[in-house]
Amino acid sequence: MISEVKVFAPGTVANVGCGFDVLGFALQHPGDYVTIRKTDAEGIRIKKITGDEGKLPLDPDKNTAGVAANEFMKKFAIKTGIELEITKGMSLGSGLGSSAASAAAALFGLNRLFNTRADKTTLLLCGLKAEKVACGSAHADNIAPSLLGGFVLIRSYNPLDIVSLSFPEDLFCTVVCPLIKLPTKKMRKVLPKKISLQTAVRQWGNVAGLVAGLTKKDYDLISRSLKDFIVEPKRSKFIPFFQQVKSRALASGALGCSISGSGPSIFALCQGRHSADKVAASMAEVYKNKNISHKIYVSSVNREGPKLC
Amino acid sequence: MISEVKVFAPGTVANVGCGFDVLGFALQHPGDYVTIRKTDAEGIRIKKITGDEGKLPLDPDKNTAGVAANEFMKKFAIKTGIELEITKGMSLGSGLGSSAASAAAALFGLNRLFNTRADKTTLLLCGLKAEKVACGSAHADNIAPSLLGGFVLIRSYNPLDIVSLSFPEDLFCTVVCPLIKLPTKKMRKVLPKKISLQTAVRQWGNVAGLVAGLTKKDYDLISRSLKDFIVEPKRSKFIPFFQQVKSRALASGALGCSISGSGPSIFALCQGRHSADKVAASMAEVYKNKNISHKIYVSSVNREGPKLC
Repeated sequence: MISEVKVFAPGTVANVGCGFDVLGFALQHPGDYVTIRKTDAEGIRIKKITGDEGKLPLDPDKNTAGVAANEFMKKFAIKTGIELEITKGMSLGSGLGSSAASAAAALFGLNRLFNTRADKTTLLLCGLKAEKVACGSAHADNIAPSLLGGFVLIRSYNPLDIVSLSFPEDLFCTVVCPLIKLPTKKMRKVLPKKISLQTAVRQWGNVAGLVAGLTKKDYDLISRSLKDFIVEPKRSKFIPFFQQVKSRALASGALGCSISGSGPSIFALCQGRHSADKVAASMAEVYKNKNISHKIYVSSVNREGPKLC
Repeated sequence: MISEVKVFAPGTVANVGCGFDVLGFALQHPGDYVTIRKTDAEGIRIKKITGDEGKLPLDPDKNTAGVAANEFMKKFAIKTGIELEITKGMSLGSGLGSSAASAAAALFGLNRLFNTRADKTTLLLCGLKAEKVACGSAHADNIAPSLLGGFVLIRSYNPLDIVSLSFPEDLFCTVVCPLIKLPTKKMRKVLPKKISLQTAVRQWGNVAGLVAGLTKKDYDLISRSLKDFIVEPKRSKFIPFFQQVKSRALASGALGCSISGSGPSIFALCQGRHSADKVAASMAEVYKNKNISHKIYVSSVNREGPKLC
């Protein structure tokens, strides 16, 4: 009988340019680690959080991993007490699905710890509750790819309909994250409530092109489709030197470049590791020259989702 | 040296539910026939049009096949005179891309007649001019699938970017066309100029789902994605008994059902001929019971585009 598990769950890039609220993919790194231990005491306790600079609540009702765990325990009527230790592998509010990764790790771990054999859709429904606590709305474009791995389409929220998309082997992602915090709630407020039908048509032409490009493994089509006429123009104003970073990424050979989730992380998709490394260096140079603290990640698309450590 | 060609070009279903202005596919039938003959007289002459109830102009500057031919002749600096005979295989203004089919047939035929070996993109650019004459705007969602065959995504208009999508072998289409005329120009005016971002997100979730379903050959996903929250609610009011016809289609096993182009034709996608025949009978029954004249077509998706007869 297992009494403790340690799980890694990946950070994620949501929206992916044109696919606002419907597309996301998982990274190899960064990600969060959650250790779950059975205890004699009842209920859920968050024993320790590291890597959050003391900013995250230990109260399980206010912490995404805690809320996700609570949903899971209720669903499977498990009375055993548990304690969680969370190690954040990415900055809070970085736009890399930090809250979703902790929730995904907790859910995947609990499913193993109690041998409940829940399918990923069931875990996802628990995770969505946690996202509501973290972001104010139950968005699935981080939690779904973090749990399922790979490239994910959230076709519909009501009913929830999650579709795994195929994508090329050699697809890499570069992320540059300036160390400023943009709260998701605020970043949702900058979005227009209404858009012109004409703009919407351009956007769904690109969404369709991106999905077709990924499944056909057509890098040129992926590149032509990675354009966002709606969200990026509004949100990019809050990200320091966004246009310069994007220009450098494209000039260095990126397939496309946009905002990861609600930012401030900027992602670029690239063909192959060599290209992704080169693009990362070019993007980061902008922040180096401006003395802006930042982190850089280069990663292939994570096909696996959470895993035991 | 060939002096005459006869070409069939297919009718098309544009929009395909959720893909307003970006998706279309070609039918095996109906379609238009165009015969092109070299003449001693200079210029383009439309000698005869049949199947149009005398409604189409013989003036080549006002006829889509004539405009397309004129664009082609200018592009390749061909001075030889030609005469066209057009046989319309579908009702005008039926929403099945009637004007595009005549233009596609003329362009494909001229390319053979003069051995110009133009690629389909070149032909498409000539065809778009013709569509502008017919519809008031240069939309590609009929002319592109009529020329290319298959399922086509118009990812972008500026620059023009046409993507052929793969789709399942056994995909069939049922079309029921009530014999009333809805002018495309008027049907564009009923559309909202602005839509909510929330509705746009639902729509592009479905567009992405439809493209993924077609390429994955996942009939269930195709079915779940064939929903249009924007155009169908506005235009369906002008189509007699639309809701009844759609309900019957879905109840009889159609994957989905919506308006073909700007209507009044109603199309349903089906898995296999047997299902498509059954769906056709159910849809048509509504019009039979109401004594509304109509035509019925059942067809697999046409992979080929125009062909010599």
